[in-house]
Amino acid sequence: MKDILIINTGGTFNKRYNSLKGELEVPTDSIALENILKYFYNLSYEIKNIIHKDSLDIIDSDRKVLAELIRSASQKKILIVHGTDTKDKTAEFLVNLITDKCIVLTGAMVPFSIDSVEANANFSMALGYLLNEPKNGVYIAMHGLVKEYDKVFKNRKIYRMARKGRISAIKFSEEGI
Amino acid sequence: MKDILIINTGGTFNKRYNSLKGELEVPTDSIALENILKYFYNLSYEIKNIIHKDSLDIIDSDRKVLAELIRSASQKKILIVHGTDTKDKTAEFLVNLITDKCIVLTGAMVPFSIDSVEANANFSMALGYLLNEPKNGVYIAMHGLVKEYDKVFKNRKIYRMARKGRISAIKFSEEGI
Amino acid sequence: MKDILIINTGGTFNKRYNSLKGELEVPTDSIALENILKYFYNLSYEIKNIIHKDSLDIIDSDRKVLAELIRSASQKKILIVHGTDTKDKTAEFLVNLITDKCIVLTGAMVPFSIDSVEANANFSMALGYLLNEPKNGVYIAMHGLVKEYDKVFKNRKIYRMARKGRISAIKFSEEGI
Amino acid sequence: MKDILIINTGGTFNKRYNSLKGELEVPTDSIALENILKYFYNLSYEIKNIIHKDSLDIIDSDRKVLAELIRSASQKKILIVHGTDTKDKTAEFLVNLITDKCIVLTGAMVPFSIDSVEANANFSMALGYLLNEPKNGVYIAMHGLVKEYDKVFKNRKIYRMARKGRISAIKFSEEGI
Repeated sequence: MKDILIINTGGTFNKRYNSLKGELEVPTDSIALENILKYFYNLSYEIKNIIHKDSLDIIDSDRKVLAELIRSASQKKILIVHGTDTKDKTAEFLVNLITDKCIVLTGAMVPFSIDSVEANANFSMALGYLLNEPKNGVYIAMHGLVKEYDKVFKNRKIYRMARKGRISAIKFSEEGI
Repeated sequence: MKDILIINTGGTFNKRYNSLKGELEVPTDSIALENILKYFYNLSYEIKNIIHKDSLDIIDSDRKVLAELIRSASQKKILIVHGTDTKDKTAEFLVNLITDKCIVLTGAMVPFSIDSVEANANFSMALGYLLNEPKNGVYIAMHGLVKEYDKVFKNRKIYRMARKGRISAIKFSEEGI
Repeated sequence: MKDILIINTGGTFNKRYNSLKGELEVPTDSIALENILKYFYNLSYEIKNIIHKDSLDIIDSDRKVLAELIRSASQKKILIVHGTDTKDKTAEFLVNLITDKCIVLTGAMVPFSIDSVEANANFSMALGYLLNEPKNGVYIAMHGLVKEYDKVFKNRKIYRMARKGRISAIKFSEEGI
Repeated sequence: MKDILIINTGGTFNKRYNSLKGELEVPTDSIALENILKYFYNLSYEIKNIIHKDSLDIIDSDRKVLAELIRSASQKKILIVHGTDTKDKTAEFLVNLITDKCIVLTGAMVPFSIDSVEANANFSMALGYLLNEPKNGVYIAMHGLVKEYDKVFKNRKIYRMARKGRISAIKFSEEGI
């Protein structure tokens, strides 16, 4: 059994330019993640690709599939790549169903294919957090912050605004920051 | 007071091409780190630039400067960017002097300026580890592994070889991997 | 007087990701071009930004503005960055109005901000062509080909298909290739 | 027969980082060139890899091999990737031996693997020049300038300085610029 289950649901993190359509699109593969994970020689992980949607298009039936995948997995450490717009909604959905695992949701404001640095920083920070005996719960990891979903949600001065529109590069914050 | 002290000692992580000399060199600045940290909007940190050497050139008087900086710092969480060749030697030096802080050493096999992904992955993973209430000790964070220096050192099947020459991209490993 | 007039009309070449909107957009600046031209230390040129549109949105009144700018310019060598979808239409428009200059249209299938190589290769190839005493006429420069607009147009086996949809990375070709 | 012969002799243009040695080295392949040429779908060319040296290490026996390759080639259009430090010396060597072809030498101040833009801009500009019915002769193409070797040499205010040391990013210039 691998130590960490990485679930790739799509979102901006994964988007790539399709030169035939002239548009960015969410691929069904994990090329962006593989470009990071190829350097994690010592990491014991597996990747599952599901949903592959912009998070604005994720619906509750998608979230049920996600929850079922997590519940049935043998791993206790779950790292989810998810679009930023409804990350809090998915976190809320999961927190009621799964209490015996550490689930960290991460993502990016800019696709890895356009600027690899932000996406990689968020993902690798989330991974480092999971490597250090995390407590069970549902966490959001973005932009130098890893906190229980609940704490980010309740003190969401900036985050909530960002969630409603797509306002700011600074999406995730807890009270007092 | 900032939460995390980042100490940049140089090493491959920071190297940049000097087109006048036609060589890579360790700069005295932290441009590589700043290119990552600019996305950590919510992180409370400060950076100190010291030593700025390839780690093969680091001597014990450099390590004394480093230890003194850590001891006198108000922070309990210390993240050190350090060349990979003598990272274990510096870790051993620090472990005898400082026992009340969590010190994580990271670095890269390829300069951030040539391939940003590996350097960023190592650094951001190390940072994520520090964000999760780490125990005191001296850790090495590279390539998907964050472990007490001691454990990596004692089971150094791959690492030791790599330390003596510059043999492999897979430098850091613990027993059984 | 500068030797070469570079007219930037927008198109895929210039597109950048707007993380607030979550979309690629044509900027009104020339940052993509400046990232190339900063290495052309010995080149005598000036840039004019006009239109800034995806070429599917360019209309004949835009083309009149473009033609007027070229006609009134003191330069004989004109390099136009233009979206690929209607490049031939703009070329046809210009060829009837301006006969005493060498006009080269170039562009890209993928934005410079996503993959700099194709955009730079097209632009720099077009520029190199202009540096070599070109004959008057209207040329298209893409993907290793620089030909009079007319020749590309008449033998447009691949190009025409590409122009109607956005079918292929190989857009520009002359007969027999 | 292919229209253009590209001869890759090595130089900074091609250098890549060897993480085992911790150094940049001139490879024996043409990966840097292939990363550009893959977008020149319509170009009729072949590549020959020879010498693979930093140009400071190129000796007259290397230049004889180069001249013989050019002389025996069926192509009239020759594009040479060459280190910048002795590009003028190689040009002078060739100009006495070959008078019935158009030979353009190009290169880069920074390896394509570190910053692709300058290397690509020089190469693609040189290629564009060759596509436009060039006169026979030996030319140097760098930084927005394509001129007969002779003209660059005679008016070498900046170039000569650069040739002796490795002084400046602005290496190539003709009189009056």
